[in-house]
Amino acid sequence: MTNKNLRIGVIGAGRIGIVHSGSVHDTEGAELAVIVDAVEESAAKLAGKYGVKHTTNVDDIFTKGDVDAIIVGSPTPTHVDLISRAIDAGIHVLCEKPVDLDINRANTISEKVKNSKTNVSIAFNRRYDPNFAAVHARVAAGEIGKLEQLILTSRDPGEPPRAYIAVSGGIFRDQVIHDFDIARFFVGDIAEVSTFAANAFSSDIKAEGDFDTAVTNMRSVDGKLVSIVSSRRAVFGYDQRLEAFGEKGMLQVSNLTDTSVQSFASDHTAKKDPFMAFFLERYAASYRKELALFIESIKTGKQLNPTYEDGCKALILADAATESAKTGKVITIK
Amino acid sequence: MTNKNLRIGVIGAGRIGIVHSGSVHDTEGAELAVIVDAVEESAAKLAGKYGVKHTTNVDDIFTKGDVDAIIVGSPTPTHVDLISRAIDAGIHVLCEKPVDLDINRANTISEKVKNSKTNVSIAFNRRYDPNFAAVHARVAAGEIGKLEQLILTSRDPGEPPRAYIAVSGGIFRDQVIHDFDIARFFVGDIAEVSTFAANAFSSDIKAEGDFDTAVTNMRSVDGKLVSIVSSRRAVFGYDQRLEAFGEKGMLQVSNLTDTSVQSFASDHTAKKDPFMAFFLERYAASYRKELALFIESIKTGKQLNPTYEDGCKALILADAATESAKTGKVITIK
Amino acid sequence: MTNKNLRIGVIGAGRIGIVHSGSVHDTEGAELAVIVDAVEESAAKLAGKYGVKHTTNVDDIFTKGDVDAIIVGSPTPTHVDLISRAIDAGIHVLCEKPVDLDINRANTISEKVKNSKTNVSIAFNRRYDPNFAAVHARVAAGEIGKLEQLILTSRDPGEPPRAYIAVSGGIFRDQVIHDFDIARFFVGDIAEVSTFAANAFSSDIKAEGDFDTAVTNMRSVDGKLVSIVSSRRAVFGYDQRLEAFGEKGMLQVSNLTDTSVQSFASDHTAKKDPFMAFFLERYAASYRKELALFIESIKTGKQLNPTYEDGCKALILADAATESAKTGKVITIK
Amino acid sequence: MTNKNLRIGVIGAGRIGIVHSGSVHDTEGAELAVIVDAVEESAAKLAGKYGVKHTTNVDDIFTKGDVDAIIVGSPTPTHVDLISRAIDAGIHVLCEKPVDLDINRANTISEKVKNSKTNVSIAFNRRYDPNFAAVHARVAAGEIGKLEQLILTSRDPGEPPRAYIAVSGGIFRDQVIHDFDIARFFVGDIAEVSTFAANAFSSDIKAEGDFDTAVTNMRSVDGKLVSIVSSRRAVFGYDQRLEAFGEKGMLQVSNLTDTSVQSFASDHTAKKDPFMAFFLERYAASYRKELALFIESIKTGKQLNPTYEDGCKALILADAATESAKTGKVITIK
Repeated sequence: MTNKNLRIGVIGAGRIGIVHSGSVHDTEGAELAVIVDAVEESAAKLAGKYGVKHTTNVDDIFTKGDVDAIIVGSPTPTHVDLISRAIDAGIHVLCEKPVDLDINRANTISEKVKNSKTNVSIAFNRRYDPNFAAVHARVAAGEIGKLEQLILTSRDPGEPPRAYIAVSGGIFRDQVIHDFDIARFFVGDIAEVSTFAANAFSSDIKAEGDFDTAVTNMRSVDGKLVSIVSSRRAVFGYDQRLEAFGEKGMLQVSNLTDTSVQSFASDHTAKKDPFMAFFLERYAASYRKELALFIESIKTGKQLNPTYEDGCKALILADAATESAKTGKVITIK
Repeated sequence: MTNKNLRIGVIGAGRIGIVHSGSVHDTEGAELAVIVDAVEESAAKLAGKYGVKHTTNVDDIFTKGDVDAIIVGSPTPTHVDLISRAIDAGIHVLCEKPVDLDINRANTISEKVKNSKTNVSIAFNRRYDPNFAAVHARVAAGEIGKLEQLILTSRDPGEPPRAYIAVSGGIFRDQVIHDFDIARFFVGDIAEVSTFAANAFSSDIKAEGDFDTAVTNMRSVDGKLVSIVSSRRAVFGYDQRLEAFGEKGMLQVSNLTDTSVQSFASDHTAKKDPFMAFFLERYAASYRKELALFIESIKTGKQLNPTYEDGCKALILADAATESAKTGKVITIK
Repeated sequence: MTNKNLRIGVIGAGRIGIVHSGSVHDTEGAELAVIVDAVEESAAKLAGKYGVKHTTNVDDIFTKGDVDAIIVGSPTPTHVDLISRAIDAGIHVLCEKPVDLDINRANTISEKVKNSKTNVSIAFNRRYDPNFAAVHARVAAGEIGKLEQLILTSRDPGEPPRAYIAVSGGIFRDQVIHDFDIARFFVGDIAEVSTFAANAFSSDIKAEGDFDTAVTNMRSVDGKLVSIVSSRRAVFGYDQRLEAFGEKGMLQVSNLTDTSVQSFASDHTAKKDPFMAFFLERYAASYRKELALFIESIKTGKQLNPTYEDGCKALILADAATESAKTGKVITIK
Repeated sequence: MTNKNLRIGVIGAGRIGIVHSGSVHDTEGAELAVIVDAVEESAAKLAGKYGVKHTTNVDDIFTKGDVDAIIVGSPTPTHVDLISRAIDAGIHVLCEKPVDLDINRANTISEKVKNSKTNVSIAFNRRYDPNFAAVHARVAAGEIGKLEQLILTSRDPGEPPRAYIAVSGGIFRDQVIHDFDIARFFVGDIAEVSTFAANAFSSDIKAEGDFDTAVTNMRSVDGKLVSIVSSRRAVFGYDQRLEAFGEKGMLQVSNLTDTSVQSFASDHTAKKDPFMAFFLERYAASYRKELALFIESIKTGKQLNPTYEDGCKALILADAATESAKTGKVITIK
C-alpha cells in the first residue's frame, strides 16, 4: 500500500450509505470514488454532494479498477455475493451487518474469506463507540477484576415500517445482532441462549410473525452471564446502555443527551432532554473510528475490525435467540 | 380491636428480630411485649434494651395471653409451625420470608391460613420501600402506560458465612425470593421461568451446591417480561435497582448513598460514596411501614401486607429458578 | 451530671418548638418536661401530644425546678432575656437563631454568657447536617488541600407571610444568617462583606423595606473567598447546596429528594421529583444531632455546639450584608 | 455576495489560529486562503497542513486581494490596528477577545467600526456552545419566567506560564472576559461590579501583580444579579457551568466528560472521568458555529456575532472588576 488515498466505493445510497460516505469524505487517507445504488436518483444525489461518480450498475465496481475498497450498505441479500466478488477482484470490503439472514448461505464463503488476500470486515461499529470501547479497555486492564455479568440494554426509539420488518430477518437478526456482537466482544464465544420474547405493542410486527420486545440470557463458554434487554420502541429516545459487573467493581455506560442542560421547576428537578434520537447520532463517532481502523487494517495488513467469522457467529446467536423465543427452549450453541 | 396498644411478641432475637423490635418500639399503636429466643443471652439482651420480658420457651407466647400478635424472625424451619399455632391461639402473625424451604410443607397449612380469623402476613418489606412503592403507584396510575418490561438488579454486598449458605435453601429461596415477590407485585402471577446461574467467585458457595450469581428471565401470565440480575457480592455496596419500562416511558429506582456528597479531583469527577451497606440501612423505612400496615391490617380487618399465598407463590418461583438453574430448562409454573 | 435523663423545657410551641419537642422525645438521655407558650392552646396541644405539662407563664421555667435545660424557640426579642435568666437559674440553653436583631442588645450579655456555668448553645443546626458535616470533615482531613472558595446556595421554597417579614429583621438576619454561620464554620472569621440585593419578585417584601434576592461575597480573615446565593423563593423546592473548592479538588453537597426515582418519557429523561419541601424535612437529621450534642455537651462539660459568640458573629455578618445591600459599599468587619 | 466560497485568512498560527483554520477547512462556504504569522515556521506548518499559502508579512493580507475575510488570532496589541486596516481594505473581521487591553485605545476605532461596510465580529464563542445557547433560548422563550439570578462558574484547568500572565492583561481581561460577555448575553448591560480576588495558590501570578482566584458580583441595569466564580486552576478539569434562576424554575449547564462511563468499586460509586481538558475540547462545537454565523453574517448582511461594541463592553467590565479587586470598592459602570 502506498501513501496514496484509499479509493472507496460505497454500495447503497440509503441511510447507512450516507453515513459511510460522510465518514469517507472526512477521513484522512481515504477518498470517495463512486456511489452505487440501483435507484439512480439516490446514487446521483449522494454522489453529487461530494462531487464524485455514481452508477446503478454494481458490476462497474469490479470491472473498472476505480476502487481499492468498498463499503457495502446495500440490502442484506446482496452481502455474500458482493463480498465474494470483491475478494475475486482484489478489493477490500467493509460490509454492514448482518452478513446474511441465512447462516448456511453465509457459510458458503467462509473458507474463501479466510483465504482472502484482501481485508473483509463486518461493520459492528458499536465496538468503536468511545463509551463501550473505554469500558472494554478498562475491563481488559483489570479494573473490575474478573468479569462476571454483562447487562446490555438496547431499545430502538420507534418501530420501523412494516415493510422493513418484513425483510429484516426479525428483531434478533436485525436489531439485537449488534448486542450479540458486543456480548462476544466482552465475554467471548457463547454456549447457551435463552430468550423470552413478546408482542407488547405492535400489531404490525406481530402480523409479520416477529417480536417487538425481548430479554435474552446467555452463558459464555467460560461461564460468564449476559443479559440483553431489547425493545423496538422507547419513547424517551434511543436506549443504549451497558453494565459490566465484576469481582472488583462495575463499569456502566449511560445514555447520551445532546446537551448537559437540566431543568428544575415546580413539578420536577434535574430533568434532561430525550436521549440522542437514533444510531446515526448516537454512534456518529463509532462510524468514523470504524472506517479509520478499516483503512489502517488495509495499510498494516492487520485485521482490526470484526471479521467475517464474527459476523457469522453473531448471526448464529440471532438464530438461536429466534429459535428459543419461538420454542421456549434453551438453545445450546455448538 | 380497642384503642389499646397492640402487644407484640418478637420471636428470634437475631439481626432481623432486632430490627423488628426497634420498629415496634417506635411505632404508635404497638408495644413490645416479649422477646423469645432459644439462646437466653440473646433474648435477654434485646429485651433489656426495651425493658420488656424475655423467654427461651416459645410456648409462653401461646399460653400466657401476653401478646396480640407475633413477629416471626426465628429460623425458617419454625415458620409453618409458629404460624399454625398462632392461628390456633388467635394471635396475628407477621412472618419473615421464606414461609418454608419446602413448598409441600408450606402448603399443609394453606387452607388453615385462608380460614384464619387472625391476620397472617409475610414480611416482604421491599413493597414498602418509598422508592419501589412510588414507582408501583405511578405505574398503577398509568404514568408509563402499559408496563412491558421489568428489570430488577439485586446484589448483596458480600457473601454470607458458609454455615448460613448451608441452611439458606440456596440463593433463590434465600435472596432472590424478595425479587420474586417484587416481580409479582408489579406484573402479577408468573407463567415461565428461565435461570442461568454460575459459580463466579465463591468456592464456599460452590461447595454447598449453591450458586453465587444468576440471571433469571420470567414471563408473566399476561405476557410481561421480567429480568432479575443477582449476585451474592457487590463490592460497591448493596445494589438494589428497579426499572419499569412501558409504552409511555420508564421509571427507575437508583441506589442510595448516605449523603449527596460528590468529590472531584485530578483523576475523577462526580464520585459518590459506596451505597448503603445492606438491607438494615437500605430498607429501614420499609420495615417501619410494613409494621404500621400490619397494625392497621389488624385494626381494620383488611389484608394490607403480602399474604401467606404470596409467600408460597414466591417460594414456587424460587423452586422453579433453582430447577431451571440446575437442569438448564425453562420451567412452566402451573 | 448523673445518668438521669436531662429534663428539657421547650419554650415556644410553634413550628420550630414542635420539631425540638419531637427530637427531645426521641433522644436517649433526654425527657420532655414542659412546654411553654403564651398561647395556651398551642402549648396545650403540643404538651398533650407527649403527655407532659404546659404553661403560658415562662417564669415557671425558672422558679419551679422542673427543668435542667431549655430549648428557646420563642420570638427573637425574647432570646437575650431568656438566656440571661437561664444562666441565673443554672439552666442550660439551646437557643434558636438569631440571638437578637440588635447586636448591641446581644452584646449586653456576652460577658455573662462567657462566665456562665451552664451551657449556652445557638441552634445553627446545619453544621450537623450529614452532608455539610461530611464535607467539613473531609476538608479538615485535607482531601481537597487548602480550601480556596466556598459557594453556598440557599433558597427558601416560598416567601413567608408579610407579617413574618415585618418582624424577621430582614432576609440577612432571618434567612442568610444560617449561611453566615456555615461560612464561618468552613473559613473562620470574615474580614469583608459585599452584598448585591434585589426586589426581584415580591411586592410584600419590598413594601417591608426588605429584599427577596441577594448575592453576598465575603473574604475571610485568612483570604478565602465565599459566595452566598440567596432567594426567598425557589419553585422547585428548598435549594440548599454547598461547594468547597480547593487546591486538590472540590466537594459538593447536592439537594435531596424524597426518593431516588427518575422518570423518562417522550419529552424528558432523568426527571426527579421536587426537592425536599423545606427545613423541617431537609434538616430533620440535623435537629436530632444538634440535640444529641447539646446533651453530650452538658454531660461532658465540653462546648460541642455553636457558641453565643458564634451567634453574635453571624449577626454581625447579617448586619454587614444588610448595610452593604443598602449602601452599595463593601463593609469591613472589625 | 455571490455563492463563491468566502476566502479567509487566518492571522496568528498559535493555538487559537490552529482551531480557526480547522473550522474554516471544515465549514461549507468558506475556504482557507492564507496563514499569517511572524514566525515563519509556525505559519508554514499550519499552512502546509491545509495546502495553502503562508506569509510572515501581515501587509499581504491587505494588499494582495487574496482574502474576503480575516480571523484575527494574533497577540492582543495587534487587534485594533488589524481591525482598522481590514475595514479600510473592505475585509470582514472575526477578532479574538479581548479587543485590546486598553479601553481608550479600543474606543479610538469605535466610530469607524460602527460605520464600517464590512462585518466586524468579536469571537466570544461561548455564546454558541450548544449548552449555553440552549439555556439562552429557553430563558428567552420564557421557560423560567423572569430571570433573577445568573451564576457562572469558570475555572481554567491549570495556570498558564508566567510569560503569558505577564502580557495577558490580568485574569479579568484575559479569562473572565468570556464570562462578562456571557453575563451580558443573558442579562444585558451591567450597572455595578464588585470583585473579591485572591492569590490563593500561584506565586508566579502574584509576582505579576495578578490574581489567581476571584468572585465577582454584578447587577444589571434592569436589576438582575450575576455572580462569576473564577479560578486559574481546577485540578479536575475545565470547570464551565451556568445556572439561570428565575420565577418559574432554573436551568443549569453542567460540565462535560469525554464518555458517559461511571465506575463503582469498594471505595466509591458513580465516579466519572475528569472534565474535558480545556477550551479547545469543551468549545469545539462553539468555534464551528461561530464561524458558520460569521459567514452567514457576511452573506446576509445581518450582524449575527457579538459586535465590536460587545467586545468593548466586556472589556469595560474587566476593567471594573480589576479596579474593584484592587481597591475593594464597588464600581459603577457609566
